[in-house]
Amino acid sequence: MKKVLDEVNSIEDLKKLNLSEKVELAEEIRKFILDVVSRNGGHLASNLGVVELTIALHSVFNAPKDSIIWDVGHQTYVHKILTGRKDKMPTLRQLDGIAGFPKTSESEFDCFNTGHSSTSISVALGMARVNKLENKNNKVIAVIGDGALTGGMAQEALNDAGSSNADITVVLNDNEMSISKNVGGITYFLSKLRTKKFYTKTNSKIKRFTLKIPYVGKGAVRIARRIKRGLKQVFIQKMYYEDIGFTYLGPVDGHDIEKLESVFRRSKSIKGPVLIHVVTKKGKGYEIAENNPDKFHSTSSFDLKTGKPKKEKKDDYSKVFGNKLVELAKKDEKIVAVSAAMVDGTGLKNFKNMFPNRIFDVGIAEQHALGMSAGMARKGYKPVVSIYSSFYQRGYDQVIHDICIQNLPVVMCVDRAGIVGNDGETHQGLFDMAFFSIVPNINIMAPKNFEELEKMLEFAVNLKAPVVIRYPRGGEGEFKFDKCGEIELGKAEVLKTGEDLTIIAIGKMVERAMEVSKILEEQNMDCEVINARFLKPLDSNIIEASIRKTRNVITIEDGIIHGGLGTSVIELINECNIENVFVKTYGYDDVFVQHGSVSELETLYGLDAKSIALSVQVLGKLRELK
Amino acid sequence: MKKVLDEVNSIEDLKKLNLSEKVELAEEIRKFILDVVSRNGGHLASNLGVVELTIALHSVFNAPKDSIIWDVGHQTYVHKILTGRKDKMPTLRQLDGIAGFPKTSESEFDCFNTGHSSTSISVALGMARVNKLENKNNKVIAVIGDGALTGGMAQEALNDAGSSNADITVVLNDNEMSISKNVGGITYFLSKLRTKKFYTKTNSKIKRFTLKIPYVGKGAVRIARRIKRGLKQVFIQKMYYEDIGFTYLGPVDGHDIEKLESVFRRSKSIKGPVLIHVVTKKGKGYEIAENNPDKFHSTSSFDLKTGKPKKEKKDDYSKVFGNKLVELAKKDEKIVAVSAAMVDGTGLKNFKNMFPNRIFDVGIAEQHALGMSAGMARKGYKPVVSIYSSFYQRGYDQVIHDICIQNLPVVMCVDRAGIVGNDGETHQGLFDMAFFSIVPNINIMAPKNFEELEKMLEFAVNLKAPVVIRYPRGGEGEFKFDKCGEIELGKAEVLKTGEDLTIIAIGKMVERAMEVSKILEEQNMDCEVINARFLKPLDSNIIEASIRKTRNVITIEDGIIHGGLGTSVIELINECNIENVFVKTYGYDDVFVQHGSVSELETLYGLDAKSIALSVQVLGKLRELK
Repeated sequence: MKKVLDEVNSIEDLKKLNLSEKVELAEEIRKFILDVVSRNGGHLASNLGVVELTIALHSVFNAPKDSIIWDVGHQTYVHKILTGRKDKMPTLRQLDGIAGFPKTSESEFDCFNTGHSSTSISVALGMARVNKLENKNNKVIAVIGDGALTGGMAQEALNDAGSSNADITVVLNDNEMSISKNVGGITYFLSKLRTKKFYTKTNSKIKRFTLKIPYVGKGAVRIARRIKRGLKQVFIQKMYYEDIGFTYLGPVDGHDIEKLESVFRRSKSIKGPVLIHVVTKKGKGYEIAENNPDKFHSTSSFDLKTGKPKKEKKDDYSKVFGNKLVELAKKDEKIVAVSAAMVDGTGLKNFKNMFPNRIFDVGIAEQHALGMSAGMARKGYKPVVSIYSSFYQRGYDQVIHDICIQNLPVVMCVDRAGIVGNDGETHQGLFDMAFFSIVPNINIMAPKNFEELEKMLEFAVNLKAPVVIRYPRGGEGEFKFDKCGEIELGKAEVLKTGEDLTIIAIGKMVERAMEVSKILEEQNMDCEVINARFLKPLDSNIIEASIRKTRNVITIEDGIIHGGLGTSVIELINECNIENVFVKTYGYDDVFVQHGSVSELETLYGLDAKSIALSVQVLGKLRELK
Repeated sequence: MKKVLDEVNSIEDLKKLNLSEKVELAEEIRKFILDVVSRNGGHLASNLGVVELTIALHSVFNAPKDSIIWDVGHQTYVHKILTGRKDKMPTLRQLDGIAGFPKTSESEFDCFNTGHSSTSISVALGMARVNKLENKNNKVIAVIGDGALTGGMAQEALNDAGSSNADITVVLNDNEMSISKNVGGITYFLSKLRTKKFYTKTNSKIKRFTLKIPYVGKGAVRIARRIKRGLKQVFIQKMYYEDIGFTYLGPVDGHDIEKLESVFRRSKSIKGPVLIHVVTKKGKGYEIAENNPDKFHSTSSFDLKTGKPKKEKKDDYSKVFGNKLVELAKKDEKIVAVSAAMVDGTGLKNFKNMFPNRIFDVGIAEQHALGMSAGMARKGYKPVVSIYSSFYQRGYDQVIHDICIQNLPVVMCVDRAGIVGNDGETHQGLFDMAFFSIVPNINIMAPKNFEELEKMLEFAVNLKAPVVIRYPRGGEGEFKFDKCGEIELGKAEVLKTGEDLTIIAIGKMVERAMEVSKILEEQNMDCEVINARFLKPLDSNIIEASIRKTRNVITIEDGIIHGGLGTSVIELINECNIENVFVKTYGYDDVFVQHGSVSELETLYGLDAKSIALSVQVLGKLRELK
């Protein structure tokens, strides 16, 4: 049977369709996305949730003249399919393939790169203000989920947008949950629209008000039924948004294309900031995902029929971290866990089950997570925060200002540190070692494997100072080393002695260092391998002694070199006045790293063991020639 | 006449006073603060605004058992006077004297250090959660201004606190304006309570609701009059806060001690999160400050009678920046200015007068300011953002994620870079060069004087890439150099040639480098002085050539060394394989720097010209001996 999707290769094609064709198209797109994501992995539930929303947006608005900014951006598969990238979807998230997030380099329809949460309203407001300065009538639309709305940046932007008179449209995609169960007052506030058993004898005035609230769509009847006892809340929400300056439209059923188009058309004629409240369901149309949107938020390849992952999931650092923390918390009741909407992702699910009162999931709110932890530490508790590397960038001031100036014992676990792979530039955790190492009072560790992570965590919760432990995504930590001694503050570990070359590595790159040394030893180069363990304080004794012996040193790290391990070793050599030393630093040199698998990217940047060993040999030859 | 203040040396003394004595005390404290601040400089208007509020808080709550967290913290002079530091107030903000912000190291009544805006609710929530875990009945109070409430971190925390059931009390100190005229929907929302000419035929239901809103105090009658046409807004606000989980009390007149005490007492019996809305007036009791709270937000020493500064204000970098930007904006209509509640402080007042439609003051909202600028840049505009150095820490993710990944031409001016002096640890701008230099695609400059700032700004607005210009507080930029050539990307400037020692400096430290060279030349050391101009890209040609010639190099910078200029030069030496070089880096070495005058602090850290010169001579001698 001929598919509608076969005929739709552009927005123009989409606009020619009638409603029933669009409804058909939506179902076909769902199947297509399920097919691609079950093969390649990717973000599933959020994309299934916005199929109709995306179709309606592109039907009514005129991209790329009108700008649509997708908050977070992992929900743009439908958008990509509709804007000329259908054929490339099978390369999704693969090296040199279509990205999992909007990229201005991919299409003029991707008007702004996103990846992190809560940025879209700010960006849209900037664009809308430029339109106003240029007297252009173009529309700017920010599509943002209710989870992302808890992020402080979005609140800052809402606040400014409300008083701006700029022509900005905020589409609030209220999908009842963000990445994990949403926490916080705002969510509660929105959820009351649907669930709160609240009854008020509405008087005539309030009735007149609520009757004016634009319910649209037959789906909305269903919504209206759910919220019939919450009319007063709708009234308050509408009044709140209108009070801060928005025209509020909705709520509207986010799976009813006709009614979505109707509300979008209506919004176009309104001047100034508009907020459209759309209610969608994550995972819509794929029952297994509807029931487990958390699991299908971001998934590896899976079997469509069962929903089971194709590859059995191995242990990873997050899981090892979570389990060890449970063990430590059993013995020490001062230990509490803090998460920013990533309880599952950071391995804290068991902790949550075991100690529901000792874990605090603050929502997408890294600043607050770190500030709150500082308050807990001041009161003598031992907060262990786990946040992904690239999201710590959101809480940098809190690390400096709230934690480190006061030297407070907060344990900051940096999950997804280093190259994460398929999520690309915005999610690579390359900067953490460099930006943390600048900060006075901080201690920074990275474990070489699972066993060392456990030891470091135990060490960290008993250290009375701010401490960072960074570890990568994935299961590299299974590697067994001959030794893994106890952790001592600022002490490195010599894994192998040698006379010709010192190899200093940290974290997961210690395993790489061992591989490199093996290759080089086959070429008769006698390597000393040092597991730095601490980036800060760096073990100057062990490192200086080794370098004075070999006079040749390389460093290997899974991060940006400048400000990281490589730089710290160079500084140490300078400080110790060790002369005539050959130094080469391996890591990422002042670049943002695109998407692809971790091993592909490491090979691309010359960081696989073979490439490093070859580079060392070549440099050695050049040096001899010189 | 005997003063009440003479008898009050502790909270216990305060608690013994009757109401009329407290009223008298308030007036005496006002006079005392006016006396101290007119001599030492400091934050005036905010402290005059919270005299009664502080008296009432300490009368009702039991610090230090109960914890009071002062958001921003510059309004704690009254608190310090009441908690045993009255006699030390004359040393306010001076080296080794009383700090201008709360310091846990100063008093057990300062339960948490603050300095930056919007942190208090997070910290308080952390403490309240610990109290809950320990079944302690202690209260935790966050005192936060309406301006600080626009900061995303505060919104994140409010959101989480609302759903927490923790015993946290938020005192919203609504002083009608934050540092400069408050912008944004939330402010608008609050201000409607006082000013909006809004009339609704309130029906009986709403009347019943509003009548229940607790107005207290005779001052509240005045407030009530002002808001009589805005009753509906009170209703909405109360409902909004109660909907996200708070018990809402107020508004209450913040200058009526009796009624403040009454509402605080009432709040103590309420379980779960409470928000108390207090209305105060900045500068209260000092007419000149009441009329110009902006000017008297933070002031240098001034004449009490006239309000005029004792020392005539000289030109500073902020002013030079603002004037140059006006000049550039006249010729280029794509230039727009962005501020985060610091239009005056960053020198943008003239710009605002000249181009009211081309400046965007987003409130205390650095994340949003930078994200919005990215949106503007994407649309072809040239946003020039000016933010203080230490506040960029709040927008670090936006610099990386929203601006630099996409290589967007946002001009990021870093005001108050380097040591700022009397505001202390939280405000010293020591980290910016280091944390910016990690980021790919970024360009970083610092001018040696006013003239060079003008040239750099003109260069920056025409560079099609992200660019940082950092410059200090104060008038150091008046220094005239013999030359100031045109700016070229990544090109340093040799100010003086020499054979013995290369001195590389950046920004205001270039003047210092010239002084050092003068001293050393008197000792027959022939110095080459290089003005780096660019930290990134660093001029490897000029620097390498100079170092190969002299084999001795020192670097001088007004910032943390690791990751800054010193580190970059060491990295360059390593990369270029220049052997047998003596290097010494001058700057701040892994420390937070306390308050004091800029010159005192520089001397303390050995960064005055004499100390540097002496250190170079000593190191030279040591080297000869070796």
